[in-house]
Amino acid sequence: MAVCFQSQLKPTTFFPSSTNTSPKTSSVLSFQFRCNFSLPTLAVTEPEPVLLSVESFAPATIANLGPGFDFMGCAVEGLGDYVSVTVDPSVHPGQISISDISGALPSVSKLSKNPLWNCAGISALAVMKMLNIRSVGLSLSLRKGLPLGSGLGSSAASAAAAAVAVNELFGSKLSAEELVLAGLESESKVSGYHADNIAPAIMGGFVLIRSYDPLELMRLRLPEKTNLHFVLVSPEFEAPTKKMRAALPAEIGMSHHVWNCSQAGALVASILEGDLVGMGKAMSNDKIVEPTRVPLIPGMESVKKAAIEAGAFGCTISGAGPTAVAVTDSEERGKEIGERMVEAFFKEGNLKAVAMVKALDRVGARAVAKVPR
Amino acid sequence: MAVCFQSQLKPTTFFPSSTNTSPKTSSVLSFQFRCNFSLPTLAVTEPEPVLLSVESFAPATIANLGPGFDFMGCAVEGLGDYVSVTVDPSVHPGQISISDISGALPSVSKLSKNPLWNCAGISALAVMKMLNIRSVGLSLSLRKGLPLGSGLGSSAASAAAAAVAVNELFGSKLSAEELVLAGLESESKVSGYHADNIAPAIMGGFVLIRSYDPLELMRLRLPEKTNLHFVLVSPEFEAPTKKMRAALPAEIGMSHHVWNCSQAGALVASILEGDLVGMGKAMSNDKIVEPTRVPLIPGMESVKKAAIEAGAFGCTISGAGPTAVAVTDSEERGKEIGERMVEAFFKEGNLKAVAMVKALDRVGARAVAKVPR
Repeated sequence: MAVCFQSQLKPTTFFPSSTNTSPKTSSVLSFQFRCNFSLPTLAVTEPEPVLLSVESFAPATIANLGPGFDFMGCAVEGLGDYVSVTVDPSVHPGQISISDISGALPSVSKLSKNPLWNCAGISALAVMKMLNIRSVGLSLSLRKGLPLGSGLGSSAASAAAAAVAVNELFGSKLSAEELVLAGLESESKVSGYHADNIAPAIMGGFVLIRSYDPLELMRLRLPEKTNLHFVLVSPEFEAPTKKMRAALPAEIGMSHHVWNCSQAGALVASILEGDLVGMGKAMSNDKIVEPTRVPLIPGMESVKKAAIEAGAFGCTISGAGPTAVAVTDSEERGKEIGERMVEAFFKEGNLKAVAMVKALDRVGARAVAKVPR
Repeated sequence: MAVCFQSQLKPTTFFPSSTNTSPKTSSVLSFQFRCNFSLPTLAVTEPEPVLLSVESFAPATIANLGPGFDFMGCAVEGLGDYVSVTVDPSVHPGQISISDISGALPSVSKLSKNPLWNCAGISALAVMKMLNIRSVGLSLSLRKGLPLGSGLGSSAASAAAAAVAVNELFGSKLSAEELVLAGLESESKVSGYHADNIAPAIMGGFVLIRSYDPLELMRLRLPEKTNLHFVLVSPEFEAPTKKMRAALPAEIGMSHHVWNCSQAGALVASILEGDLVGMGKAMSNDKIVEPTRVPLIPGMESVKKAAIEAGAFGCTISGAGPTAVAVTDSEERGKEIGERMVEAFFKEGNLKAVAMVKALDRVGARAVAKVPR
């Protein structure tokens, strides 16, 4: 069933506090900032923390899905970021400190420990602001499982995990869509005010963003028994979101508009019916965005062709790329498809790539460990 | 469940036979033409008629539904056209003769009895061509229940009824989507190669046109118990399809494209979930086509406003207009909404209008009477 979330909250611009230079008191190098966003404060009375510490996980996400450009996304199982938040008396009340950032991938070193320049930090602070937290300071550690700039919603995963962790710490006062609003504060800093990664990262499954003002999200439920597998192939190539966005056409001809709209409708219907062939076909059928971005990712055209020839139901670019995503109905077939796609990236794009076969994450961001007070 | 019909048939252009001046032999003034389209002939051996005569009905249809512009439509119960086809030895084999056109509305007199210039005739001939009918001549009579140029799929209803009647007469050899192809021969003459009226007129319910080459149609099943009612308000005003189409923008900005795509997705999801509030909202949310057409129909902006104020879940233009369509969940409420809309057409547009409250037709074109041989 499609469930519609609606909020009357109006998204607002992020305004960092002018008091963001307060000295840190933790033993670990970090930055602390008062949460002073212009987000609405939803808690009338400041809630107490119900736990000492929460560790949360948020999944990778695939935005766009072809014709769902800028309004659809879904979450991917077994791949994502972890965030721990802990009540820390050494952190100034109402502030947050990023104590640690870890992860196997070298790109992790690029991440700032300044909470105002870190996706997890911005999102955590936004939740603190919405909860009206003024009496408790938190320390946060981030463990990246996702590479940066891969088109798999790396920033959204960090933001989603942080939002859920802080919310859980204070007794889960905020709804999923309020957490999406908090995560959007972070996303707007990184790639623009788009919820097609952050919404599925928090809510799981497939999500359609129906409007931003007010924020309205539709969960599109894939039938339980559908054997959906995504083949995700990430090449060693940087496809900056800004560059990929600059490639988009400013104006679209009516016939292409009608075509993409019809494919978006077919995509939604296929998801709700669990029709993987229809879903793959719709994902493959974007005539507006994908054609402008494919030439910017070496080998992508051949990768898509290789995926289809190997039996994938469809293939497109995940988010702004460079990861390619194909759809199939078995893990084994997915592995074969992935091998052909990796070969094509190497042969036609001269790029090394890694393939993964992943199922849909239906849960979204969640606490994975809790330490009582 | 969404059912997908797919054909490998390539739509082709309509080419009338050069032998279309053969003398009529019927006692009723009519024209006869050999069926000689370039449509594919699907029957290897020519089928025999299994009946002497068939009367069929095809429903009115609402195309576009707001953001479903040019690729979505649905059928409306209790409103439509009737066609009778009869094996007639006085008609030259392989030809068709329109014996009679009737209907309460004065616009019926505008219709041609030349089968090549009549929607029912073109469609009937297309089915004869596809069935390879060379040995039997048919006479056809058309009873119009729909006004012309109202935005309720008048031409499609005639074409759909004729296609189904001829197909039934020869043992129902053709599938629904093959009949849509036949009907498209007619639609392409009247308003362009668009299936958003003819497909639901033949198939009933909601239909999404996924592609034309090959023709792929998705039936979007509204859950059985959904209490959907359309309020159809037709003013005394001519809104020629060509003029309404000329008003469309040639180019669309990316943000509007994304918006309409997301509303199309929301419309599809709402239909499949039986969410009438969501459906109405999506129908009301077209930012591309409706804004260019509303100013061409006097009072339409106020009519929409009146519908929403009276409790309709949404309101837009049906097809290319001038009929306004609103959505509600009870007949009684529908009548009240209709009264407010009629008032608004009169007050703000200085137009007389009539209102009807109609349910969804889930069946589509069908035989209603059969005479055995």
